Amino acid sequence: VRCITLTTDFGTQDWFAGTMKGVILRLAPQARIIDLTHEIGPGDIRAGAFALAASYAFFPRKTIHLAVVDPGVGTKRRAIAVETRNYFFVGPDNGLLSYALAREDIKAIHSLDDIRFFLPKVSSTFHGRDVFAPVAAHLSRGVAIRKLGVPVSDFICLDWPLPKISGGKIIGEVLYIDRFGNAITNISSPTLKQLRYQPAVFLKRKQICRVAAAYQDVAPGGFIAIMGSSGFLEVSTNGGNAAEQLGLSVGASIEVRPSVAR
Amino acid sequence: VRCITLTTDFGTQDWFAGTMKGVILRLAPQARIIDLTHEIGPGDIRAGAFALAASYAFFPRKTIHLAVVDPGVGTKRRAIAVETRNYFFVGPDNGLLSYALAREDIKAIHSLDDIRFFLPKVSSTFHGRDVFAPVAAHLSRGVAIRKLGVPVSDFICLDWPLPKISGGKIIGEVLYIDRFGNAITNISSPTLKQLRYQPAVFLKRKQICRVAAAYQDVAPGGFIAIMGSSGFLEVSTNGGNAAEQLGLSVGASIEVRPSVAR
Amino acid sequence: VRCITLTTDFGTQDWFAGTMKGVILRLAPQARIIDLTHEIGPGDIRAGAFALAASYAFFPRKTIHLAVVDPGVGTKRRAIAVETRNYFFVGPDNGLLSYALAREDIKAIHSLDDIRFFLPKVSSTFHGRDVFAPVAAHLSRGVAIRKLGVPVSDFICLDWPLPKISGGKIIGEVLYIDRFGNAITNISSPTLKQLRYQPAVFLKRKQICRVAAAYQDVAPGGFIAIMGSSGFLEVSTNGGNAAEQLGLSVGASIEVRPSVAR
Repeated sequence: VRCITLTTDFGTQDWFAGTMKGVILRLAPQARIIDLTHEIGPGDIRAGAFALAASYAFFPRKTIHLAVVDPGVGTKRRAIAVETRNYFFVGPDNGLLSYALAREDIKAIHSLDDIRFFLPKVSSTFHGRDVFAPVAAHLSRGVAIRKLGVPVSDFICLDWPLPKISGGKIIGEVLYIDRFGNAITNISSPTLKQLRYQPAVFLKRKQICRVAAAYQDVAPGGFIAIMGSSGFLEVSTNGGNAAEQLGLSVGASIEVRPSVAR
Repeated sequence: VRCITLTTDFGTQDWFAGTMKGVILRLAPQARIIDLTHEIGPGDIRAGAFALAASYAFFPRKTIHLAVVDPGVGTKRRAIAVETRNYFFVGPDNGLLSYALAREDIKAIHSLDDIRFFLPKVSSTFHGRDVFAPVAAHLSRGVAIRKLGVPVSDFICLDWPLPKISGGKIIGEVLYIDRFGNAITNISSPTLKQLRYQPAVFLKRKQICRVAAAYQDVAPGGFIAIMGSSGFLEVSTNGGNAAEQLGLSVGASIEVRPSVAR
Repeated sequence: VRCITLTTDFGTQDWFAGTMKGVILRLAPQARIIDLTHEIGPGDIRAGAFALAASYAFFPRKTIHLAVVDPGVGTKRRAIAVETRNYFFVGPDNGLLSYALAREDIKAIHSLDDIRFFLPKVSSTFHGRDVFAPVAAHLSRGVAIRKLGVPVSDFICLDWPLPKISGGKIIGEVLYIDRFGNAITNISSPTLKQLRYQPAVFLKRKQICRVAAAYQDVAPGGFIAIMGSSGFLEVSTNGGNAAEQLGLSVGASIEVRPSVAR
């Protein structure tokens, strides 16, 4: 029995995610299906890639991670299945899997070619149901990945913006904003640990907050930067929505410099 | 082990859907429960009927489709269970099941009368928990449908608006708008195939877009009509929200006519 | 095989709830995981407590109710597991479990101390993933609650506002507003049954509606007070959003007095 996770931009207000589960259970009645999220912004491949990378490694070994954020559905864009040392990944080859794959030891990548593993009728707009769900179900039943299609040697990688360190300061950027309004940056724990000073976060040369350990290290309503659960520095508040209050969106520039007395 | 799907307007912000699952699992610990959606608009029977019809047939045979969009809860409205050649359906007799049932070969319909299959205490506002969930759980454990109540010979059918074809043009209407803003019409693939010309969609006599095969057949931001995954023509855009941008809502009139050069 | 329910304020747009499930399934592959809700307002302990109290008793015996609305995460706030006659509860000791526990026969309360039952690396912001999910998984596999940490004799209780009865009228307040806009009050069925008159609901000395039995006892759009499925009087409308239309929010005062002719 293998777990299959679902990461999509299908939302939950329509029948799309549920229908994928029906297709999986018809082919693999024992599969355990877990929603990672269906609320990736429509077509937001980068957010989907980040969500998958932040969570895939917490699942049981051999879990099949099925991800569908697929603005190119119906075109010639490639669809792939990937086997790594610990997991399987299935999705469109548009970069969606690339942040997770960058951390994995890849053993095989195959193009999804063999229509015997698809639904009999494939629509031009819903490959989540017609292609990806049945392929994941077959993998979960033990079909070897090489049966799915020809081996391929590369896949599309999304650019991962690295922080710049110069003159003792770090210039990073916001990668993702979560439901609480935490602005997750690309500044990792090892990067931050290189600093020899008490660091603070600056926006447009103005100090916003210090780096601290827990939300309640600041008074309610105060801003705080904290090493988040994904392993990256996050700009947050104690009890509010930091991104909204600070006008931060994905791509916004963040600086870490020595804290100034206030 | 049978699957039970849930289609409701209970939303996911409260405990309603989760509580139905608790009731089911107490009676049928092995049941597989799949959310189709809980975000049907409050009381929007027609949207619930459409969602169920678009998805039920993708589930394993003998799945029990439990649907609760029930503005008449607490009144004398009938509650029913239906057995078809392939599935079971349980819900209020208010038309919610009718679009799916119109496509099925019905074997038996029974009124939900026997309170032994309900929770011991039945509220006047939450039959999803107190009546429908326990009935579905009993069905999933193999209780025969005839035990649930008296056989009934009819059920309430929602009107399904058919497109009109005259003078070589099709006058259809919008049936459902999904999370992406795709406006799903009542113009089916066989209807569209009768046309001998290159078709385009018109709103109020103005050509909006041609019928094409994939979202990326138009430039980003452009409108497109595409045969959707439910088997009906949809008005969409490549990367935006067509319904919002075109001011389309359910019931809006859509015409298909020969494309004019632009 | 035990059920584990999840009640959190993590939302469903990010990977947080899904990741907790991955952690649970890695430790307890057979666990049945049911979402109660992940849409408790950020940090709204009282709403989480109400949701849990309204639903926990509908689940199979020995279900583990895992709840995480945890604004104090990362501070010294205590985390606890509680065994009652019928269920287990796991969560931060901030009052979140207290409304449910007030109705249960408590057998043991233990502090979560033993890091062997946590993930190897514990973040300072996501104990749902790193502490609570693994503890619930271990409990579901049969680990005895006393192994988790030292026994404790008390826990933080949220105040539960009781209605005041004087001069034949009841002064209550709104405890929770659900997705439909029903304003659930603290006026229970036994309290209401003490009245010897035809009761009506008053806001600021103005009669809003009578207490009746079913939504359709009033014309569409009309207000109605109804004994709800949680066992408390709710102010509703037939087909609209009562809380919005009446400007009701949690804590608003509601009076029940003899109905006046209109």
